[in-house]
Amino acid sequence: MNRVVRIHEHGGPEVLRIEEAAPQPPDAGEVLIRVAAFGLNNSEAQLRRGTYPMTAADLPTRIGRECCGTVEAVGPHVSSVQPGDIVCTIPAFDMKRNGVYGDWCTVPEAGVTPIPKGLTLVEGAAIWQQYLTAYGPLVLYGDVRASHTVLITAAASSVGLGAIQLAKLRGAKVIGTTRTAAKRDLLKQHGADHVIVPPDEPLADRVLQHTGYRGFDLCMDPVAGPDIAQLAACAARAATIFLYGQLSPVPSPLPLLDLLRKGLSIRGYTLWEITLDPNRRKRALDYIRRHIESGALRPIVDRVFRLDEIVAAHAYLESGRQAGKIVVKVEESAS
Amino acid sequence: MNRVVRIHEHGGPEVLRIEEAAPQPPDAGEVLIRVAAFGLNNSEAQLRRGTYPMTAADLPTRIGRECCGTVEAVGPHVSSVQPGDIVCTIPAFDMKRNGVYGDWCTVPEAGVTPIPKGLTLVEGAAIWQQYLTAYGPLVLYGDVRASHTVLITAAASSVGLGAIQLAKLRGAKVIGTTRTAAKRDLLKQHGADHVIVPPDEPLADRVLQHTGYRGFDLCMDPVAGPDIAQLAACAARAATIFLYGQLSPVPSPLPLLDLLRKGLSIRGYTLWEITLDPNRRKRALDYIRRHIESGALRPIVDRVFRLDEIVAAHAYLESGRQAGKIVVKVEESAS
Repeated sequence: MNRVVRIHEHGGPEVLRIEEAAPQPPDAGEVLIRVAAFGLNNSEAQLRRGTYPMTAADLPTRIGRECCGTVEAVGPHVSSVQPGDIVCTIPAFDMKRNGVYGDWCTVPEAGVTPIPKGLTLVEGAAIWQQYLTAYGPLVLYGDVRASHTVLITAAASSVGLGAIQLAKLRGAKVIGTTRTAAKRDLLKQHGADHVIVPPDEPLADRVLQHTGYRGFDLCMDPVAGPDIAQLAACAARAATIFLYGQLSPVPSPLPLLDLLRKGLSIRGYTLWEITLDPNRRKRALDYIRRHIESGALRPIVDRVFRLDEIVAAHAYLESGRQAGKIVVKVEESAS
Repeated sequence: MNRVVRIHEHGGPEVLRIEEAAPQPPDAGEVLIRVAAFGLNNSEAQLRRGTYPMTAADLPTRIGRECCGTVEAVGPHVSSVQPGDIVCTIPAFDMKRNGVYGDWCTVPEAGVTPIPKGLTLVEGAAIWQQYLTAYGPLVLYGDVRASHTVLITAAASSVGLGAIQLAKLRGAKVIGTTRTAAKRDLLKQHGADHVIVPPDEPLADRVLQHTGYRGFDLCMDPVAGPDIAQLAACAARAATIFLYGQLSPVPSPLPLLDLLRKGLSIRGYTLWEITLDPNRRKRALDYIRRHIESGALRPIVDRVFRLDEIVAAHAYLESGRQAGKIVVKVEESAS
């Protein structure tokens, strides 16, 4: 089958349309993949709604950046993969031409990497976005180590869980937040040393209690909005807050006094800093692959949908009920 | 004479009172200085008004952090200076006990350093705050070099002019801003490659024009407030905005989209990060002293007042008419 998912207008999950389209032959430097499974990310729900902060979508557009499947054909000058290889895509391309929701996708070679050993095809669609996102703040820039305390907000998201794993792999103390009390145990199972459930539990007070009133050294936050003031209030001296998204619909204030008093940094960050730079991309892929293959990083698949359930899958993505990655299985045989 | 300046209540320049007070004998680790001249800083006007963002003043309080004079006595365990030495103070202490406006001050040894060779006593009161403030962003953290463009807002302030000199010493391209068109030539004389006069000249547009639409790499801004959005709009990818004050009375928004799109950092910074850390302080003092003595950094004294003109001196400080340091000469013989 040659189904692809496209949106022709912005809106709720129902604007995701499954259409027939012949595979796009790969141009120079491109790879045509027969998709077995693809993963869903919040940025795709934002693109669908028309609220994606990075770029406006040029409609109609395909959608999706993270899949796993088999190379069907390669264009000229592609040297790293060949037909028959089982590969994953990583977010390193625009969705208009290269979106991956569907039976096939045609993507740039820079966005293709072999599946790590030992993973299923479903798991292969559920790893890269979260670990690549967490790699920048925790490894490349933050150089997190055992003496650090890392605060991860929205910790039950796929990036949140990936960040918990990666911070624990580095030996840090990890505090996770979730607005759903029922996810508390789950975060602890995945490695969080402490879990805070705001607003029932006051975020800044609890972080300070859990750190002997020292505060966190590094925070990864995809929300922004007014709660930034809370984050600044419980940051340790010289801490950095990495903002990697804008889930809050409310403008964010700059907590200037805490910045001045404690020498804090607020750093905007997206995984594009990693995936669009060949050297950083290679180092990040090598690092993550090694730790996936050793078992230190473990893909966390929350739930698997079928392609014809894509509208329900997006509705579930936006429900906030998931913990970890939502995957859509395209090939019936994929596991 | 044993005059000291104190404030007993917050308010305009008129709350600065000249009072008689016997010199405070130095405790262990302290140095008593007979003041020849002292420099004025914006943070002292903020302390006087009660708007100093770092700490609230416990009234009554002395005031002032930067002076030049002769060591009169030292307390136990002071080893780096001795009576008769000509020294400067650097901002490394609280003003309540250690304020320097007056005929004498008693300050911690860590806040005392020999006057650089070749400077007058008035110049010795007009150097450290601006160069120590600029040293952190430009040298220690920013490692500014010839390939960088540095944007310095409020560039005709003493810190602004010091930062221009230091950035030029590092080989960078420097863009300065001032709200007073008449100061344009002055900034150029002190090394600015380009001067922008907002709001008549649109800040972000001009910075982009002056950088071939690349933007600045590093900004030093003491204002904050709504103009932060302008700064973020003309920042180059991965740039850092060092906020080192809060002169704007208006809350600052966080320009999150530009932070995300360009991977920007906003960093709160004060010179305390340098002056309260023994290693950083030593490196900074050595670096600045070397370049003052070589002539690469040149003290810029705007105007000299007498101690009995302290109210007028503060009024002038807040008028915004000055360019460089305002110094109060305490000893009639000081030059």
